[in-house]
Amino acid sequence: MTIIKDIIDNDTSINHLCVIGTGLIGGSFSLALKQVGACRRITGAGRTEKTLQQAKKLGIIDDYDTDIASAVADADVIFVSVPLGAMSAVFEQIEAGLKQAGNAGAVITDAGSSKERVQALAEEIFSDSSRFVAGHPIAGTEQSGPTAAFAELYNGRRVILTPTRNTDADAFSLVTGLWQRIGAEVHTMDVQQHDRVLAATSHLPHLLAYALVDCLHKMDDVEDVFQYAAGGFRDFSRIASSDPTMWRDICLNNKHEILQIMQRYKEEMDVLYNALAADDGDKLFEVFSRAKQTRDNFVHK
Amino acid sequence: MTIIKDIIDNDTSINHLCVIGTGLIGGSFSLALKQVGACRRITGAGRTEKTLQQAKKLGIIDDYDTDIASAVADADVIFVSVPLGAMSAVFEQIEAGLKQAGNAGAVITDAGSSKERVQALAEEIFSDSSRFVAGHPIAGTEQSGPTAAFAELYNGRRVILTPTRNTDADAFSLVTGLWQRIGAEVHTMDVQQHDRVLAATSHLPHLLAYALVDCLHKMDDVEDVFQYAAGGFRDFSRIASSDPTMWRDICLNNKHEILQIMQRYKEEMDVLYNALAADDGDKLFEVFSRAKQTRDNFVHK
Repeated sequence: MTIIKDIIDNDTSINHLCVIGTGLIGGSFSLALKQVGACRRITGAGRTEKTLQQAKKLGIIDDYDTDIASAVADADVIFVSVPLGAMSAVFEQIEAGLKQAGNAGAVITDAGSSKERVQALAEEIFSDSSRFVAGHPIAGTEQSGPTAAFAELYNGRRVILTPTRNTDADAFSLVTGLWQRIGAEVHTMDVQQHDRVLAATSHLPHLLAYALVDCLHKMDDVEDVFQYAAGGFRDFSRIASSDPTMWRDICLNNKHEILQIMQRYKEEMDVLYNALAADDGDKLFEVFSRAKQTRDNFVHK
Repeated sequence: MTIIKDIIDNDTSINHLCVIGTGLIGGSFSLALKQVGACRRITGAGRTEKTLQQAKKLGIIDDYDTDIASAVADADVIFVSVPLGAMSAVFEQIEAGLKQAGNAGAVITDAGSSKERVQALAEEIFSDSSRFVAGHPIAGTEQSGPTAAFAELYNGRRVILTPTRNTDADAFSLVTGLWQRIGAEVHTMDVQQHDRVLAATSHLPHLLAYALVDCLHKMDDVEDVFQYAAGGFRDFSRIASSDPTMWRDICLNNKHEILQIMQRYKEEMDVLYNALAADDGDKLFEVFSRAKQTRDNFVHK
């Protein structure tokens, strides 16, 4: 893991950005780049014309095209922020559009929450995958859609890029420069390390929160249960309000790492269950203390 | 479950309150009652003189006594806010003090997070357990100690009282009146129902959060893991910073209900694990959607 502390290029700017998927992630990227004047023109692309109309009305994009192949024809940078399940089809359309237009210089990057599968798709689909820079901004809310987008989303937040040995240095610098211009801190990681770390810190917590709310939903006195849920529960379960399609796709795309950490978590739960069943207060105290200390260290950092 | 909508007595006030345990819960109760002028005198009691000195300095109590038996001798109401593990010994000292002083009229109430065991202790130890009103304010933060106390903690929050058929009506009204004077909404529940609901909405989430942080702590790349933890993780794991002693005691005291809901949760986790292992995106989507809908309904209520 490396933090790119040097600013790649304070003046990074491009002529034409194409954002595929103009929701929270893509819309916020557009808004921020517009605010700093880093793109002369931003074209939105996606399946749903209504969403694109909304994004244009909100000033997120300058124009739009429901045909991805024609939307990317003239683009310098293509930012793909669609659910992971749609990534393959979108890559195919990008490849077709670039080929047809003879646009060999375009740099493609994405914002997907898992990276190994996305990188594999890029290598499979793009005739020149060295122009693809896989990325993942560690930012977001449980909201979605163009109305949820805001220019400050990435300010001060971390963005992980996972270049491979084949990634073109210029493409990498350009993507790094754009993120840095909108205030993000760019880190690089190995694809597998990214997926392992994110499985633990993001994907597992989402699964745990979904499982908790669904578990409570099945109780006989579900109304009372939710009525007496305190602040801790609200915070804890907030991420269970996240988009189910997006999270289904993330799970399926990062299956291997998620199953591994789930298995470890289930073992940890068994330790606590068995300690409680055996009235082993010392064991409970040991685990709780270690967890508190770990989190307190982390939060005060 | 009943919500006591009528204000029992807008002018509920007492001469002498004794608060045993002057941390976040007891300290905030004292501060709020002082603010509305509902107690002429508040005495703090507890094991640790330093804590009591601090509480006096912060204006939480008027005076203090490290001897619980003598602290309660003249009290009209005794508020017990100590960890559940200390409840039994504290009840013994209260009983001894009231007996010695001939103070038969004192009303005793508590703030413990599980109620069946506390009620059983009260019936076992107090010569007149009808003057005991078991209670649980659904409020708190992950902070503890007198410095964490603030007068507004209970304002607009729910307090669950779990009277039995033997609870004295006057004692119940007095405790209800005090809570209402400081802005709390008093609900009544059956002891078992309280413990079942709280196991699901509070005790289980704490166990899950402790287990998550401890699970991550054991990873090889623990530093990276915490470095890339996003907002969702921070919210989700906040309750893992709670006091380990308090939570050990809560678990041991509400063992039966917690083990039941943990078992159901483990089954829910298995469903998700198996769905993911089988690439069953439909099943994942079904659970995630139901959870999102349940939580959205609950939060917008």
